[in-house]
Amino acid sequence: MENFNYYNPVQILFGKGKIAEIAALIPKGFKVMLTYGGGSIKSNGVHAQVMRALRNYEVVEFGGIEPNPRYETLMKAVQQVQRENIGFLLAVGGGSVIDGTKFIAAAACFRGGDPWDIVAAGARVTVALPIGVVLTLPATGSEMNANSVVTRDSTREKLSFASKYVFPRFSILDPETTYSLPPRQLANGIIDAFVHVMEQYYTVARGDEIQDRFSESILKTLVEIAPRLMQEGAPDYQNRATFTWAATVALNGWIGCGVAQDWSSHHIGHELTALHGMDHGVTLAIVLPGVMRATAGSRRPKLLQYAERVWGTDNADQAIDATERFFQSLGVATRLSAHGIGADTIDRVEQRLRQRAIPLGGMPDVNIDNLRDILASRL
Amino acid sequence: MENFNYYNPVQILFGKGKIAEIAALIPKGFKVMLTYGGGSIKSNGVHAQVMRALRNYEVVEFGGIEPNPRYETLMKAVQQVQRENIGFLLAVGGGSVIDGTKFIAAAACFRGGDPWDIVAAGARVTVALPIGVVLTLPATGSEMNANSVVTRDSTREKLSFASKYVFPRFSILDPETTYSLPPRQLANGIIDAFVHVMEQYYTVARGDEIQDRFSESILKTLVEIAPRLMQEGAPDYQNRATFTWAATVALNGWIGCGVAQDWSSHHIGHELTALHGMDHGVTLAIVLPGVMRATAGSRRPKLLQYAERVWGTDNADQAIDATERFFQSLGVATRLSAHGIGADTIDRVEQRLRQRAIPLGGMPDVNIDNLRDILASRL
Repeated sequence: MENFNYYNPVQILFGKGKIAEIAALIPKGFKVMLTYGGGSIKSNGVHAQVMRALRNYEVVEFGGIEPNPRYETLMKAVQQVQRENIGFLLAVGGGSVIDGTKFIAAAACFRGGDPWDIVAAGARVTVALPIGVVLTLPATGSEMNANSVVTRDSTREKLSFASKYVFPRFSILDPETTYSLPPRQLANGIIDAFVHVMEQYYTVARGDEIQDRFSESILKTLVEIAPRLMQEGAPDYQNRATFTWAATVALNGWIGCGVAQDWSSHHIGHELTALHGMDHGVTLAIVLPGVMRATAGSRRPKLLQYAERVWGTDNADQAIDATERFFQSLGVATRLSAHGIGADTIDRVEQRLRQRAIPLGGMPDVNIDNLRDILASRL
Repeated sequence: MENFNYYNPVQILFGKGKIAEIAALIPKGFKVMLTYGGGSIKSNGVHAQVMRALRNYEVVEFGGIEPNPRYETLMKAVQQVQRENIGFLLAVGGGSVIDGTKFIAAAACFRGGDPWDIVAAGARVTVALPIGVVLTLPATGSEMNANSVVTRDSTREKLSFASKYVFPRFSILDPETTYSLPPRQLANGIIDAFVHVMEQYYTVARGDEIQDRFSESILKTLVEIAPRLMQEGAPDYQNRATFTWAATVALNGWIGCGVAQDWSSHHIGHELTALHGMDHGVTLAIVLPGVMRATAGSRRPKLLQYAERVWGTDNADQAIDATERFFQSLGVATRLSAHGIGADTIDRVEQRLRQRAIPLGGMPDVNIDNLRDILASRL
């Protein structure tokens, strides 16, 4: 086990009816900005529940935060926050809304120049507005971590930052808010959670048994509930609750304590989204099998452990195939060509990642030099 | 899954050399009380490491906190804290020292009358001194939770309280501090952690797959590393690290989210310790097999899940036998009679638990009425 520091002060309120408890969690007298996305929260009743809970607060709304939240949009919220003296941000939505709100919280208090430097130049965040979350789309784990990914339209960059100051003060996870999600978003959420686990697990076999078995627990559970989720007639509360909690614990720091990590699928996937606007989950379903095949030799012991414990096979190749077929079973095409993407994209991804000159993922066997081969294998 | 709230702000610093980082975590200028137990930290070098890290602080020492920390002892510390204007408590030791320090922290700020009411009458804790922890004995999980158990000598009572105000601000978990532990303390720690998991797991089979599999992960890991730990020649870092982390996550709230719980083995075990001074771990090794046999019918589905996933058998009785044999393999006698305890103790335990009139554990199938049978089966 490697040395590690762990800290996660997010308060979780999980279950039916928990939205009603928001008011006890936001300091009295604070002016609240409610941030959200495309407006589905208005049709599925979540917005009404939130507004009822906030009836004793002054609330301003900031809707229209996009999937892969855009810097340009978020900076409009920052200006409004500063202009209207907002004291608390309540993000109601999925990972994009939460990530965007974290950026708003940090940028609104940023005094070190251009807020874009927070993601582009590692500018240090030392203060941020307090954030609360009402989660409606289990996927990114953003509701219980300190990470944020932001996209800049003008330069087609998708970049991230992390700061303990943007941990949500609380997150409400009511599985019933997921009932109106379309299958495509369920599929993306399942893939995102699955790959988050793999990136903290599919590395080295060192006998970190608690962390490994926790990771395998989440992977097995996702494999088990995915067909149920995709084929539900009426939404089933227990399925939705298990899915919601699986996605949260996939990236809240618990399984990442003291283990090697490899975030290359996310790094490469972010470029595909930035260049082609692809769904985040879809990019991961394309890239991860490529990363796994490229590292099947160098990570043999861990791959065999994964094969045996998650898929019940002693055959490493079969485990990689099973992983890719699992993504396909969710209705996702796992080849670049199926999304109209050709070899020219490989050049562009390589060029962009070389320019940034940051390590790719965290393990030496996935790097800027074998990136071309990995992506070529996914055409 | 049941509705739940989760909150755990304890900062964990895990690994070799982490004690040196203490100074960055305690506010400058605070007068620190270092609390500890019987003095083993002086012979194994931990005390020297801590004092080196605290060289720029004014430190007073309070040693002699007993296993099953005594109210009478802790109140002496409370008086010293108040007299000497202590601003920070640093607990260096195992669960007893940490639990005792939590009580000191709460009692020193308690203005509601007799501090014993905190454990005996559920008096509300609304403020406490800040606490830090250097863990030396993996077992109770107290380093990462808000619980404390205190024993009063004069009335032979062992009672508990919980308050978010006594979460440690930080806990240092350096597996090397465990190298000097005698086998008896390793065994007790393994049993305590195992039973903590069982009390959050061996209840109902409802398909809470994340929590169930996390629990099974810890149980399987403890079963796997126990023989290695008990038969180590020289201490092995990876074994100690896995054990340390297993004991922490067994009772830091992670596996308990949204699941049914049954703390009857601890409740009954506390009475045996209070009456006979038995090691906490030994009492659990005696009681849990009795609880399991008494509930083998009412909890059949969960027992069969446990049998299959932890012990690889489809036979429920064999799984209970395997559990008891596991405790015995650690050198612990699992019958009351082997510890010189007879049927008269059953009367006394029943009488004491009836007087307290609190629910026994949390599941209806273990209660004050079948308590006699459970204990009689363990004579």
